[in-house]
Amino acid sequence: MREINYVKTVEKWGVFEVAIPGYSDKNPFTDYTIRGRFYSKNEDKCVDGFYDGDGIYKVRFMPSFEESYTFDIEGSFSEEKYHGFFDVTPPEKNNHGPVRVANTYHFAYEDGTPYYPLGTTCYVWSLQPEELQELTLKTLADSAFNKIRFCIFPKHYDYNFNEPISYPYAGTPCDNSGLLKENYIEYMGCAPGNNWDYMRFNPEHFQRFEKRVNDLMDMGIEADIIVMHPYDRWGFSMMDKEADDLYWNYVIARLSAYRNVWWSLANEYDLMAHKQLEDWERYAEIICKKDAYNHLRSIHNCRSFYDYSKPWITHCSIQRQDTYKTAEYTDEWRIRYKKPVVLDEIAYEGNIQHGWGNISGQEMVRRFWEAACRGGYGGHGETFMDPENILWWSHGGKLHGESPKRFKFLSGILKETPGLGLAPMNAKWDEVAARADGSPFGDGGYYLYYYGFNRPSFREYYFDDLHTYEAEVIDTWNMTITKAGQYKGKFQVELPGREYMAVRIRQAD
Amino acid sequence: MREINYVKTVEKWGVFEVAIPGYSDKNPFTDYTIRGRFYSKNEDKCVDGFYDGDGIYKVRFMPSFEESYTFDIEGSFSEEKYHGFFDVTPPEKNNHGPVRVANTYHFAYEDGTPYYPLGTTCYVWSLQPEELQELTLKTLADSAFNKIRFCIFPKHYDYNFNEPISYPYAGTPCDNSGLLKENYIEYMGCAPGNNWDYMRFNPEHFQRFEKRVNDLMDMGIEADIIVMHPYDRWGFSMMDKEADDLYWNYVIARLSAYRNVWWSLANEYDLMAHKQLEDWERYAEIICKKDAYNHLRSIHNCRSFYDYSKPWITHCSIQRQDTYKTAEYTDEWRIRYKKPVVLDEIAYEGNIQHGWGNISGQEMVRRFWEAACRGGYGGHGETFMDPENILWWSHGGKLHGESPKRFKFLSGILKETPGLGLAPMNAKWDEVAARADGSPFGDGGYYLYYYGFNRPSFREYYFDDLHTYEAEVIDTWNMTITKAGQYKGKFQVELPGREYMAVRIRQAD
Repeated sequence: MREINYVKTVEKWGVFEVAIPGYSDKNPFTDYTIRGRFYSKNEDKCVDGFYDGDGIYKVRFMPSFEESYTFDIEGSFSEEKYHGFFDVTPPEKNNHGPVRVANTYHFAYEDGTPYYPLGTTCYVWSLQPEELQELTLKTLADSAFNKIRFCIFPKHYDYNFNEPISYPYAGTPCDNSGLLKENYIEYMGCAPGNNWDYMRFNPEHFQRFEKRVNDLMDMGIEADIIVMHPYDRWGFSMMDKEADDLYWNYVIARLSAYRNVWWSLANEYDLMAHKQLEDWERYAEIICKKDAYNHLRSIHNCRSFYDYSKPWITHCSIQRQDTYKTAEYTDEWRIRYKKPVVLDEIAYEGNIQHGWGNISGQEMVRRFWEAACRGGYGGHGETFMDPENILWWSHGGKLHGESPKRFKFLSGILKETPGLGLAPMNAKWDEVAARADGSPFGDGGYYLYYYGFNRPSFREYYFDDLHTYEAEVIDTWNMTITKAGQYKGKFQVELPGREYMAVRIRQAD
Repeated sequence: MREINYVKTVEKWGVFEVAIPGYSDKNPFTDYTIRGRFYSKNEDKCVDGFYDGDGIYKVRFMPSFEESYTFDIEGSFSEEKYHGFFDVTPPEKNNHGPVRVANTYHFAYEDGTPYYPLGTTCYVWSLQPEELQELTLKTLADSAFNKIRFCIFPKHYDYNFNEPISYPYAGTPCDNSGLLKENYIEYMGCAPGNNWDYMRFNPEHFQRFEKRVNDLMDMGIEADIIVMHPYDRWGFSMMDKEADDLYWNYVIARLSAYRNVWWSLANEYDLMAHKQLEDWERYAEIICKKDAYNHLRSIHNCRSFYDYSKPWITHCSIQRQDTYKTAEYTDEWRIRYKKPVVLDEIAYEGNIQHGWGNISGQEMVRRFWEAACRGGYGGHGETFMDPENILWWSHGGKLHGESPKRFKFLSGILKETPGLGLAPMNAKWDEVAARADGSPFGDGGYYLYYYGFNRPSFREYYFDDLHTYEAEVIDTWNMTITKAGQYKGKFQVELPGREYMAVRIRQAD
C-alpha cells in the first residue's frame, strides 16, 4: 500500500484526479483495470479509472461535500495499491454543482439555483483547428447560451467533409477524396480504407475533448455530450457490441467527474441502422451503473421519438417532428412524458439549402418564446452559407444570426420567474399563457402571455377584483419592456399591433 | 291565357325576368304561388317565382342556350295564365357562365374557362350605407378578388353593433342600446324588443341585396352568399322550421337566376345552437330541389367541419381548425373529401384583438401560396382597427393591408397554369411542390416549388436527362419573376436566401 497525500485541495463539485503509472505492455485499455473508492463522512463512491497513454492511469472523482475525503486506488494496472486524503473547499463563485431535474418539468443546479436551458448546437466544434475552438469559446462567452450539444466522434455530412484534428482510436482513416460530396452527403457507415483498432483509444483525442468540457465548465456552460451519431465515414457508428461497450465505459470513466456533463446517447438515434432498441437500453444501463453522479440523460431523434417515459431518461431531448408546428407541442409533450421538455432541434437560423437549416431569426426566437410559455425550452443552431464553410452548427466560430442577442433578453425574463420555471396556463385559443411554476405561492402571481405571429392592438385580462396587477408590454424582438399600468378587476392592455409581443402581469399587492 | 311577347332579348347565362301584377290581399308571401316553365330546344326548366311587394310577382330564369325560349307562368297569384317568348343572344365578353367543379379539385366556368378562386369576405357590406357599398365595389374592381362571401341577414358581433340599412322581414328591431358591447360581443339569439313577422319578407331588403349580386356579376365576381349565420340579436338565427323553409324558398326563387351565385348554407354553422344536422340537410334538399341551375353549394364551420363528403356539397368551404397549421392541410383535405378545397377563412390580415383577425400580410400571402401549391385556394379578409369602425371583413370600404396586391401577382401565376389548376406533387419534406393538374399532357411539364418561411440559398432539381427545363425564381412577396436558366439532368437553382420564394420549372422542349 502506497500512500499519496495530496496537498492540493479541490472545490466542491470540482474534478479531483489521481494519476498513477502502471503497466503499458499488452493492451492497457482492455487488459488492465483501475478503480477508485472515494469516501468521506457523507458519501462513499466507487468509480472506474482509465488508461490515458504513456503508461499513466487516471481516476477522477467529483466530491459533493465540503469535508475531508479518503481514497483507495486498486486494480490490475499495478502491483501497488494506493491510498490518500484530500480536503474539499467550498464551491467557487460560478460553481453551482451539476444540473438536476428539480420539479418534474424544470431544472436547477444542485445548490438550488434555477437553471433555464438556453442551448445551442456545434456538433464538432472541439474537433476543429485550435484557433477556431478558441473563437467558439469567445463567442459562447459573449452569448446567453448555457448549454452546448457536441459530439465525441467526428462527423461526415454536408459541409463536414474535412478531417477532424484527431481520431478517437488508434489507426488510420479512409481517404476522403473517394467520397464525393454530391453522392455521399448522407453517407453513413464505414468507407473503404479505414483501419482502426477499436480496442485501443487515442488518449490525445479524449484529452482535447475533455479540455473543452473543462473550459465550458469554467464558463458555466453545460456540455450536452453526444456520445454516438450516424454521420460517419469511419465506421464508428457500426462497431460491434464489445467495442461499443468498451467505448461507453471509457467515456464515462473519463468524463463523469465533470459536473457540467449531460449524456446524450445519440443524435438522431433512429438513423443508426446498426443499432437496435436493446443496444440503446444497454448503453443506458452502463451509464446508470457507471456514472456515479447521476448526470442528466436523454437521446435525440430524427423521425420518431425515443420513448421518453423510460425511467433512465431524465428529460426529453426533442427534434421537432413537424415542419410547421414545433414548439407548439411543448405542453402536450409535458403531459405525455412528465419530464422537462428541451427542444434541442427546432430548425436552425440560416440560409443553407436544407429546410432544417434556413429559418429566420424571427421564427427562431418565436419558437423559443412559444416553448418557454408552454413550459419548455428551445434550442438554437445556426447554418449560414460561409465562403470558408464554417457553419456554427457544426464548426462553431462566430455567430451571424439575429436570434442570439434576443436569447439574452429572454434569459433575463426567465431569470425573473418566481420559482423554477414557467408552466402553461389555460388560455384563450389565440394566445399562449404561462404562470410561474413551483413557486411556494402557487402561481406566484406571475403571468406571461405571448402572441407570436398574431398582432393584437389590445387584449383584455381579468384575474380577480381584490388584487392590484401590474402589466408590462414586452417586445420580444426589439427587446424592450414597457410599463403598462396597474389595474384591478377586468382591464385592457394596449399593444402596438406588431408581431412577437408578450404581456407580463404581476400581482402587485 | 295572356300572351307576353318580350321584345328584349337576354344573353346566355343572363337573368330573364317576368314581372306580373297579382293579388296583394292576405299574405302574398304565403297565401299565393307563382311558378314558371321555361323551355327551348335544349332545356326545359320549372322555377318558383316570388312576391316582390306592391302587388308585383316575379319569375326569374337563367337560360343556358343561345336559342328561342318559350315560357308559361301560372299559380294562384292571379286568375290569368301567361305565355311568352324570348330570344337568347351570345354571352357578352365577361360572361363565362356559372362556375362549376371541373375536375374533382378545380373549378371552371361553364364555358370551360378555368376559374381560380381568389376570395375575400365582407360579411355585411351590402347592408352598409350606399356610399360605402359603392366604395366597396370600387375597391373590388381594383383587386384580384373574384369571389366574395357575404350575408343576407344583418350581423351582430364585435365591431358590428350598428343597425343595417334594411331588415329582411316586416317588423321592428330590438333596441340595440341594451346590448352593451362588453357583454354582448358574441350574443347569439333574439334580444328583447324584436317584433318580426317571419311570414312577411321585406322585398326592399332583397331588392338591395340582389342589386349587389348583379353588380358583382357584371364585374365577374362570384357572390358566395351566406344564407344563415349565428351573429344575431334579431332572432333570425332561431326561427322555426316553417319560417326557415319559407326563407330558403324565397331566397332561392329570387337569387338562383344570377349566374354568379354560390350557396353557403351558413357561416360557422356549428355555432347555431338552434339548428340540428337534420335542419342543414333539409335546407340542402330544398336547394337541390329548387335551384334549377345547380349552383355551387357548401357550408362553413367554426370548430368542426361539416361532413364535406355529403353528395350535395360541391366543394369544401373551410375555416382552419388549427392556429398554426392552416393551408398546410390542404392536400390532406383533398384526399379526404375528393372535392375542391377552398380555405374561406384562414385568419385575416389586421391588428384587432382577436387571434383570427391579426395576422401579417406576409403570413396571409404565405397561406395563399401554401394552399395553391397544395392544390387548393386561400381566402382573404382584413381586420384593421379603424377610427370609424369600418373593417373590410364586415363592412367593406377600402383595403389597407399588404396582401391584396400580392394576390394579383398570384392570380397571374395561377392563370399561367396549363390545365385547370395545380396538384400537390411528391416533394422533399422541406418544400411544397405542385404540378399542373388536368392538363391534356399529364403534368404539363409545369412545376411550382414553394419555400414559405424557409430561406434556402439554392436548391437542386432533377427531372430526367432527356428534356430541357427552364427555371424561374419567383419572389412571391416582392412580386418578381426572374429567369434562372435552362438545364438538362440534375441542376441547381440559386435563391436569394429570403423568405417567401418559389421556383417555377417548365419543360422547354
